[in-house]
Amino acid sequence: MGYELYYHASIQGRGEFVRLALEEGGASYTDIGRQLAEQGGGQQAVLAMMGDAGGDRPPFAPPILKDGDYLVSHTANILMYVGNHIGLAPADEQQRHWLHGLQLTITDFIKDVHDTHHPLSNALFYEEQKDEAAAANEKFHELRVPKYFGYFEIVIARNSSASGWLVGDALSYGDTSIYHLVEGMNYAWPKRWASVAGNYPGMCQIRNRVAARPNIQSYLASERRIPFNTNGVFRHYPELDR
Amino acid sequence: MGYELYYHASIQGRGEFVRLALEEGGASYTDIGRQLAEQGGGQQAVLAMMGDAGGDRPPFAPPILKDGDYLVSHTANILMYVGNHIGLAPADEQQRHWLHGLQLTITDFIKDVHDTHHPLSNALFYEEQKDEAAAANEKFHELRVPKYFGYFEIVIARNSSASGWLVGDALSYGDTSIYHLVEGMNYAWPKRWASVAGNYPGMCQIRNRVAARPNIQSYLASERRIPFNTNGVFRHYPELDR
Repeated sequence: MGYELYYHASIQGRGEFVRLALEEGGASYTDIGRQLAEQGGGQQAVLAMMGDAGGDRPPFAPPILKDGDYLVSHTANILMYVGNHIGLAPADEQQRHWLHGLQLTITDFIKDVHDTHHPLSNALFYEEQKDEAAAANEKFHELRVPKYFGYFEIVIARNSSASGWLVGDALSYGDTSIYHLVEGMNYAWPKRWASVAGNYPGMCQIRNRVAARPNIQSYLASERRIPFNTNGVFRHYPELDR
Repeated sequence: MGYELYYHASIQGRGEFVRLALEEGGASYTDIGRQLAEQGGGQQAVLAMMGDAGGDRPPFAPPILKDGDYLVSHTANILMYVGNHIGLAPADEQQRHWLHGLQLTITDFIKDVHDTHHPLSNALFYEEQKDEAAAANEKFHELRVPKYFGYFEIVIARNSSASGWLVGDALSYGDTSIYHLVEGMNYAWPKRWASVAGNYPGMCQIRNRVAARPNIQSYLASERRIPFNTNGVFRHYPELDR
C-alpha cells in the first residue's frame, strides 16, 4: 500500500520537508503529482483532493498525505503524524510536542522566506511587488535569519543528549528539515549565506550528517528529487543576493 | 498546581486561543504576564522564558504553556497538547490530527490577519507601512476571507456527526477558536463583517453556541478577559473598514 503524497509536481516547496522525511524513513510512498495523469496522477489529482473533495475531512491545501483512507495536511502536522509511524519522532508525548514546536518554528521561518519574494500577496507575481520584496528581503536577512537560526543553534547546543541532532539522541524529521533550511539558504542566497554560515555550526553539521545518510543520497541522486527553482519557496533572484 | 500561561499581558493576540480553551475546559491556570512583578509575573517573567532561558528545551516565542516543568509553545501545539488533558480534543489519533490541521489552518489565517496591518515587517510601525497595509487589506477581504471561511463552512457542513461543531460530536478547542475568529472579524472590520457574515452561518452558529457556554460567559465577564485593542492581531483601523 504505502502512503500517497499530494503536492505540486514541479517544485520542492513545503512538500520537500515531507519528501525528505519519507525518504530518510524508508517509507513506501507515491508522489501523486509526479505520476502520469493516465495513472491517476498529475496536478489534477492533487487539486481534486482539496476543498470541495476529500469526503467529510477535506484538506485545505497541499501538501496532503494519504494513509489508507485518512488524509492529513499541513507540513508540520504530517511530519508529526507520520514521524511516529516511520521511526523519525520520539515516543514520549512531551518530547514529541517539543519536536513539533520546533517544526512549527520552521514553518514560521518558511513563511518569512516566502515573504522575501511575495510580501504583498500570492495573487500578484514577484515582478509586481519587487520593491516591497526588496524591502522585506533586507529585513529578513537583518532580523529574521539571525533570530531563527540563532535559536536553532541554542536548541542544538542545549540538547541534553549532546548528540548534535536537533532533539534527543537520534535523527528525527526535525533534522531532515534543518538540512532543507541550509540547502535552501545556500541555493537562494549563496553570497549572503557564505558570509554568515559560520555563525551556525550546529545547523551546518546537521546538514552534513543528513547529506551523508544513504537514503538521502539515494533520493538526491534519483529522479524523485526536484531541483530548486524560482517557482518554489526558496528562490534565487540575484538582485536579492548582494 | 495548574498550568502557567506565558503571554503578553496587554493583548489578546494569539494567546487568546489558549485562554479561551483553558477557560472553557475549566482548567486551573495562571496568566503569568498579568500577575504583578512582585508575585513573579509581568512582562519580564514572560520574556525570561524565551530563547536564552528555558533549560534544555527553550521556547522560541509566546504563547508558552508550562505544565509542571514542561514547556510547550506555538498556539496550535499548545492546544493539541492541552486539549487532550482537559477534554477539548478527540481521543482518536487520526481525528486529533484532523482537528490539529484545522487549527493550523486558523494559524495561517491569523498570519494573513496580521499582514493586513504589518505586511512588510514587524520591525516597522503600522504607520510606516500604511500604503502596503491598505493593499494587503483589500486582497485579504477579496481573497483570503472567502477562501478560509468558505472552507470552514464546508468542514462544518460535512462533519459526519452533523453536530454543528467543527469536529466530531462535541465542542473542541477548534470551536473556541472559531468563536474567536468571528469575534475578531466583528471587532476589526464591523462594516465589512456585517456585509458578509451571512455567508458563514456555520461559523456564526458556533460563535453563538460558544458565547452561551457558562465558562465562557464567566470568563468574558471577568477581569481575566483583555478587551480587543489596536496592539493585538485583530485591529480596528477605520480606514481599513470601508
